[in-house]
Amino acid sequence: MNQPSDRSSIAATADPLPSWNDGRARQSIVDFVAMVTKPGSLHFVPMAERIALFDNDGTLWAEQPMVQAMFACDRIRHLAPQHPHWKTREPFASVLRGDEESALAGGEQALVEIAMASHAGTTTEDFARFVGAWIAAARHPNTGKLYTEMVYQPMLELLAYLRANGFKTFIVSAGGIEFMRVFSERVYGVPPEQVIGTSIRTKFEVRDGKPVLVRLPEINFIDDGEGKPVGIQMHIGRRPIAAFGNADGDLQMLQWTASGDGPRFCLYVHHTDADREWAYDRKSSSFGRLDKGLDEARAKGWTIVDMKNDWKTIFKF
Amino acid sequence: MNQPSDRSSIAATADPLPSWNDGRARQSIVDFVAMVTKPGSLHFVPMAERIALFDNDGTLWAEQPMVQAMFACDRIRHLAPQHPHWKTREPFASVLRGDEESALAGGEQALVEIAMASHAGTTTEDFARFVGAWIAAARHPNTGKLYTEMVYQPMLELLAYLRANGFKTFIVSAGGIEFMRVFSERVYGVPPEQVIGTSIRTKFEVRDGKPVLVRLPEINFIDDGEGKPVGIQMHIGRRPIAAFGNADGDLQMLQWTASGDGPRFCLYVHHTDADREWAYDRKSSSFGRLDKGLDEARAKGWTIVDMKNDWKTIFKF
Repeated sequence: MNQPSDRSSIAATADPLPSWNDGRARQSIVDFVAMVTKPGSLHFVPMAERIALFDNDGTLWAEQPMVQAMFACDRIRHLAPQHPHWKTREPFASVLRGDEESALAGGEQALVEIAMASHAGTTTEDFARFVGAWIAAARHPNTGKLYTEMVYQPMLELLAYLRANGFKTFIVSAGGIEFMRVFSERVYGVPPEQVIGTSIRTKFEVRDGKPVLVRLPEINFIDDGEGKPVGIQMHIGRRPIAAFGNADGDLQMLQWTASGDGPRFCLYVHHTDADREWAYDRKSSSFGRLDKGLDEARAKGWTIVDMKNDWKTIFKF
Repeated sequence: MNQPSDRSSIAATADPLPSWNDGRARQSIVDFVAMVTKPGSLHFVPMAERIALFDNDGTLWAEQPMVQAMFACDRIRHLAPQHPHWKTREPFASVLRGDEESALAGGEQALVEIAMASHAGTTTEDFARFVGAWIAAARHPNTGKLYTEMVYQPMLELLAYLRANGFKTFIVSAGGIEFMRVFSERVYGVPPEQVIGTSIRTKFEVRDGKPVLVRLPEINFIDDGEGKPVGIQMHIGRRPIAAFGNADGDLQMLQWTASGDGPRFCLYVHHTDADREWAYDRKSSSFGRLDKGLDEARAKGWTIVDMKNDWKTIFKF
């Protein structure tokens, strides 16, 4: 144990993906990493260009229910005393009755109203504090686990495996950029500057001699679907070589990744495990719908993870 | 020479800032770095939080003339055969006559017209190719040097010194994000994902089966003045601990940096050397104006680099 060389050789030979079953999905990942990291090989990719992107909801953690919507509803209940008229006004009235499903069923207009009332009007620092306090305590309605425990163990291993091989890992999600940044480093090892997401506008102000950024009730950028390649280029400025998603909203990100020169890797997480998680794809109406993406993945030979068969463990607990 | 330990001890004791004269500016930098990197010290900053920001024009390279404006005018001359009406329409007519000063004197409207005509309408990949070819060949009108040789040697040393001490270095400039990204890694060692700048909107399209991002003639974000803290938060998501600028357009970036908790470092490069570069500050009308910033730097004890006295060498040539 006091021989450092022994320890490092143990580390090098240990399985970096212990929660993955042997199979085509696992093998395709290991083969790709070996190919792009082998010096002198035809497909070698310099470390600076090893950019790998991960969707969040449904790819890195469970998306039933939508965690950020739960935060928004809790925040609205917290703010309700200052807004007495919410009691009689939708979608707030439903939120206050605890009927989140009805509130969120009100379509995009309702969603935007809930998002703005819960996400704007504070400074960036206060907002980060609210999210931090919430995520440290809020629990999943079915499992009773913290939401940050509802992350996929095989994907945590994959993130670490890629980083150990010189990849820079980014999150590219339709979720709120400032929401995810609060826990991305602690939970995923992804620092805030490598998180790309949906945002509202902010404004610089000096309040009592102290500079602050105030969050305005206006959408700045929607990082979903065709917005994902736009957000990727804005934040990263070069084409990624690997991308991981689970829904049709990730399709353009995967297309954008796949269409660069040289070796590329695209993977869809397919929710097939009704016993250990949820089974959904083409039938899903509201989120996580994987329909076009599944067809394109099959046509183009992208990797499809069958959660039921490819993952030995889903959650750590 | 075949003793690695000897080599590293030589490297460790070599002066990391050989182009800086001894003096308060140099000392303040060295003291700050020592303070935040010393494990166990009261002011120790973990590596992940060592974020340092650099303005580009006038801070990292010479801003006379504005390099990106020179690119825009050359690009307009290149595109002119496809736009015969430009011959009689300002600001294009002035550009085509080689009278860039008159063209750019037309105020913001003229600048936006020139910027859109020269920067939009292409894919992101084609635009990067145009900039790459131009910057490899275009030369400064007075010195005859490539623009990428007109970088300040002391600042290159400072960038490398900070990185050697675990800092992550970012560029935060009013210049075009996709313009700077073409050369930032080669010239400054700053990768594209660590460049923040002004941008136009882009749109995802599939052309002949190939996904592209098309650059639209619409401003997306202006990364100047009060925009800089907004851009910093959008891209990085945490407060920087050090910021380097040269003009009033950098003031809010320095205020934002200075107002966080813990040790902070702010520095203004003051253009005082009429012989080796240019001397300008409060009198400058069009760009690089340093007026309010100079007063605030003096009032708050920020570091002011007197280029004439603090820099042994300005350019490498």
